[in-house]
Amino acid sequence: MSAQITVSVAGSERSVAAGTTAGELFADDTRGPQAVVVARVGGELRDLDHELADGDVVEPVTVDSEDGLAVLRHSTAHVLAQAVQQINPKARLGIGPPVRDGFYYDFDVEVPFTPDDVKALEKAMQRIINEGQTFSRRAVSDDEARAELADEPYKLELIGLKGGAAEDAAEGASAEVGGSELTIYDNLRKDGSLAWKDLCRGPHLPSTKLIGNSFKLMRTAAAYWRGSEKNPQLQRVYGTAWPSKDDLKAYLDRLAEAERRDHRKLGSELDLFSFPDAIGSGLVVFHPKGGVIKREMEDYVRARHIEEGFSYVGTPHITKQGLFETSGHLPYFADTMFPPMEMEGSNYYLKAMNCPMHNLIFASRGRSYRELPLRLFEFGSVYRFEKSGVVHGLTRVRGLTQDDSHSYVTAEQAPAEVKHLLDFVLSLLRDFGLDDYYLELSTRDESKDKFIGSDEQWAVATKVLEDVAVASGLELVPDPGGAAYYGPKISVQARDAIGRTWQMSTIQYDFNQPARFELEYQAADGSRQQPVMIHSAKFGSIERFFGVLVEHYAGAFPAWLAPVQVVGIPVAEVHEQYLHDVAATLRAQGVRVEVDVADDRFPKKIRNAQKAKVPFMLIAGDDDVSKGAVSFRYRDGSQNNGVAVDDAVAEILEAIRTRATTP
Amino acid sequence: MSAQITVSVAGSERSVAAGTTAGELFADDTRGPQAVVVARVGGELRDLDHELADGDVVEPVTVDSEDGLAVLRHSTAHVLAQAVQQINPKARLGIGPPVRDGFYYDFDVEVPFTPDDVKALEKAMQRIINEGQTFSRRAVSDDEARAELADEPYKLELIGLKGGAAEDAAEGASAEVGGSELTIYDNLRKDGSLAWKDLCRGPHLPSTKLIGNSFKLMRTAAAYWRGSEKNPQLQRVYGTAWPSKDDLKAYLDRLAEAERRDHRKLGSELDLFSFPDAIGSGLVVFHPKGGVIKREMEDYVRARHIEEGFSYVGTPHITKQGLFETSGHLPYFADTMFPPMEMEGSNYYLKAMNCPMHNLIFASRGRSYRELPLRLFEFGSVYRFEKSGVVHGLTRVRGLTQDDSHSYVTAEQAPAEVKHLLDFVLSLLRDFGLDDYYLELSTRDESKDKFIGSDEQWAVATKVLEDVAVASGLELVPDPGGAAYYGPKISVQARDAIGRTWQMSTIQYDFNQPARFELEYQAADGSRQQPVMIHSAKFGSIERFFGVLVEHYAGAFPAWLAPVQVVGIPVAEVHEQYLHDVAATLRAQGVRVEVDVADDRFPKKIRNAQKAKVPFMLIAGDDDVSKGAVSFRYRDGSQNNGVAVDDAVAEILEAIRTRATTP
Repeated sequence: MSAQITVSVAGSERSVAAGTTAGELFADDTRGPQAVVVARVGGELRDLDHELADGDVVEPVTVDSEDGLAVLRHSTAHVLAQAVQQINPKARLGIGPPVRDGFYYDFDVEVPFTPDDVKALEKAMQRIINEGQTFSRRAVSDDEARAELADEPYKLELIGLKGGAAEDAAEGASAEVGGSELTIYDNLRKDGSLAWKDLCRGPHLPSTKLIGNSFKLMRTAAAYWRGSEKNPQLQRVYGTAWPSKDDLKAYLDRLAEAERRDHRKLGSELDLFSFPDAIGSGLVVFHPKGGVIKREMEDYVRARHIEEGFSYVGTPHITKQGLFETSGHLPYFADTMFPPMEMEGSNYYLKAMNCPMHNLIFASRGRSYRELPLRLFEFGSVYRFEKSGVVHGLTRVRGLTQDDSHSYVTAEQAPAEVKHLLDFVLSLLRDFGLDDYYLELSTRDESKDKFIGSDEQWAVATKVLEDVAVASGLELVPDPGGAAYYGPKISVQARDAIGRTWQMSTIQYDFNQPARFELEYQAADGSRQQPVMIHSAKFGSIERFFGVLVEHYAGAFPAWLAPVQVVGIPVAEVHEQYLHDVAATLRAQGVRVEVDVADDRFPKKIRNAQKAKVPFMLIAGDDDVSKGAVSFRYRDGSQNNGVAVDDAVAEILEAIRTRATTP
Repeated sequence: MSAQITVSVAGSERSVAAGTTAGELFADDTRGPQAVVVARVGGELRDLDHELADGDVVEPVTVDSEDGLAVLRHSTAHVLAQAVQQINPKARLGIGPPVRDGFYYDFDVEVPFTPDDVKALEKAMQRIINEGQTFSRRAVSDDEARAELADEPYKLELIGLKGGAAEDAAEGASAEVGGSELTIYDNLRKDGSLAWKDLCRGPHLPSTKLIGNSFKLMRTAAAYWRGSEKNPQLQRVYGTAWPSKDDLKAYLDRLAEAERRDHRKLGSELDLFSFPDAIGSGLVVFHPKGGVIKREMEDYVRARHIEEGFSYVGTPHITKQGLFETSGHLPYFADTMFPPMEMEGSNYYLKAMNCPMHNLIFASRGRSYRELPLRLFEFGSVYRFEKSGVVHGLTRVRGLTQDDSHSYVTAEQAPAEVKHLLDFVLSLLRDFGLDDYYLELSTRDESKDKFIGSDEQWAVATKVLEDVAVASGLELVPDPGGAAYYGPKISVQARDAIGRTWQMSTIQYDFNQPARFELEYQAADGSRQQPVMIHSAKFGSIERFFGVLVEHYAGAFPAWLAPVQVVGIPVAEVHEQYLHDVAATLRAQGVRVEVDVADDRFPKKIRNAQKAKVPFMLIAGDDDVSKGAVSFRYRDGSQNNGVAVDDAVAEILEAIRTRATTP
């Protein structure tokens, strides 16, 4: 009888034979979405053939968990690499990590992959998967690894990066050499013969079989070795893998839906905005139709700020350097700011944030406690240097306009003001059709040199935000280390129509800048006190919010935001005047209405209006004119005939007034 | 009998004795505001002792004309210099030209002038004036001038500048050496003895007597010789002189009134805006109260633009250099632009104008004649480098926001669009209380290298503007050479409450940029045509217009613009709640209302509201409360007691709605 060991699984002790593997422990978990693919042993992910030791704490990791998906995808990347080297033995391996929703692998090949190559690779991968190769881990010395991988120059370079050089390693390289020892994973056929091997930290699936047929190669792209233009250019193959065919299909459907909603594509199709090359990357130009939406957003948010007790102020887009030194943004934010302009012996910076200028307004004269909360807001256009590769449509730009506010309050007023701001922000998001969100609480982490202030100050500030966030009843996700240097932050993460989350509004508690600017007010007792300032942006950035709205609505804006709210479509030229009269009625009520008097035929006009996603079409033919009615058509194609003009007008006005979502 | 000559005066021929002087010709004009002080002979200004020649065309120049005033002031400057050298023979002379409303003279003295010195100088000047010294002109060779002025090093330097170096000469130096020959003016006492002399082009008054006692020294300041910091610092004495004591008094009153209305002073007193040193010169920060006015202006002008068929667009504040090269602004405007920021190998400029970006919107897709006029407008914040010495409050800034529009039209539509814009502009000015204006037509001058385009293009464009300007019936003043490089301009010059004129709105015709950007539209016949673009700014710059409004209204804004429109003032604490209720009624109608619940006593509250120039005060005491009334007080101190609350509310709403000027 072999020796027994005791391991802990899901909180209970189990006695098993010495030499039992993690896989044997979970052997009753069967193939399927819940299949156990690796195990967490003493906090570390391990292959299922890892032998357990006495006292191990073991947890199963199923394929549908975050870690499980990463293992599935990483193993699929190995299968891809094996397939590439089967077809082209001269291909040399770069790195092949899992990434969000998939994986990639880089190869040094003479000719980029063609679409036909990709199809052939998928077939080869399926054969490898069907073979049911096992992934087998093997620790090796550096010299052994060098000898075994003598033909793989990139792997040799990675071996040299092991350990301290991890920071310097290419993105994903830690999947290969991140551990304290080097390991090689062998892919073994059923007969035990070696099919392929790779330098890899692991862990991996027990068998290629678990990949099944729920994988797909997505696209190829050129990529420099270790991300540097000085290095050779490799060919990257992106793929995805999921626990089931249904999961894969759902993912591909989501991609297609996101593609259909892509604000960059819709922005161009609907003539909303552009990013002219002549101006530069990440700098948006709003066209007339986009300008209508931008104006509705601005009007809304300015009116709301005033209702909520904020004063509208205005500050320049440039300033002398010293201001950002006083605030502490320099040197902290220097990398994200545009380079300075030297004039008359001073360095002027494009502003990357508005708060220091609002502090100057606070400090422009003596302040009394009676004036607090003093709430300032503006449309602050700021410029931030984002790397070209990161710039993305309206959601990641170099020039953005924040609806930026700063509330100056006494410490006692801070909790109520944070609640006030959170209520404001949530009601704003609801008015823009975003009613599914959670909160993120960004706090200081251990890297204290990135944050200014005492432990106690941070604790007080964090508690204020946390209490308000908890009281809101919304889901609260911690984000340690995500705070600004001057204080903690609540951010609202909104889910859009297809379930993607976007960081929108933010509320930040700041005890630092008031001190740095020596802000003070006279308290009721005559003493001089320092206010707390609370930063808040409701849209966040108008540009980014605009982009999210386009995707959320797939360009079919609710009537109140639609650039053109109503199009009158005459069945024939003789009905034009009738519709001009209806349009005049609507226009007098502030409705954005056009009558389509182009030379196109009637059905083409309908198609044009639907393509432009105009919420309401008012169609008039002989019947309508004789009855004083219109045929009232929605952009989804539904239509009510013989609607009295007054009723049509009333319905349109009501939809605009209530900010209703329209079909 | 001496020989006769024939001269032409005011269109008629006169026969006079040879040797007759201009002064003798106009001898019957007597002392007074209409006194003839010099004559224009053959187009040149001459002293009255200038001997006429046969065929001369002679016009009298009276002291109240623009030229006459300049002569009066220039002569007074000589008297000042004589007085300075009487008192301090070591004082050395700089230059002493007439300037707007007065004159100055620069002196090299060891110690700056004190206020007592200035009083003593005025006394000495009055003695010289009373002596009735004559100004006597004398042509001299360069060598003679050098010998006579050997002790005046600055004059010697000016002699060296004569002729070609005129461009390089200091401001005002042309008054000394601007002619083709050098002249010295002697001041001769009644007995013919020389009192003083100066290198001077002239002309001058016949006698110091004509200065009378209607002059005054205004202030002293340091000034570098020839405007350069590298040169010695001189002491400048500013003075003014007028045809009569009444004129002087009126001028001093105007100055006091302008001082009272100075927007920089009022901006601070009323807490409207500031120019923090930490940000930099010429960069304004709008405080909450200034923000209210700015918002009313923005809302007004945006709504009006939309009514007038303009689309609201948005463009970034920076762009790559190439865009301004395409437009032609670089190199023409390089001196007025901030230096570039280099990023990723490109030079980015802060924009100094918006038109090139609007051109990109026009060019972003194909355009049809059906879309024209295509009218784009935005609040375009631009940055222009103005020298520190020139920056002045809000009226000359480095950062400004234009309500900038560009109308793209067919050549045939241009006249109607220019008229449309001019009507728009004038109605806007009227709504802001400016109803006294004239037009200036800025055209190309002979320096053709500053202007792009053919003679014919300029002629067509100028004719379009001129026809519309003439048809408006407004006074039209020519401004040759004042056009932009791309086309001619109409500007509206508005007179404010105290008669000063300000350049406000502009309308520019541009045939250049459409060609440079290769803009085109498809005409009705299918051909490709180039549009004309018409630039227009209605406020011009929001900052500048704001500054003019502050001065025009002396801070007492009409109710619709006032940051606080109504203050409720309780006679005692017991009346506060009553006023809070009244305020709630007003607030519900969008009125900006406050109730003064401070600890101050009642009369102090009244004074505070008047100092803050709040249009309406609603006062409530026992009587008012019992009657459901208020005491309705205006900021000029007039007051109606026992006004029913409903009537008070109605009056306030009406004043706001109609943009009425309130006492």
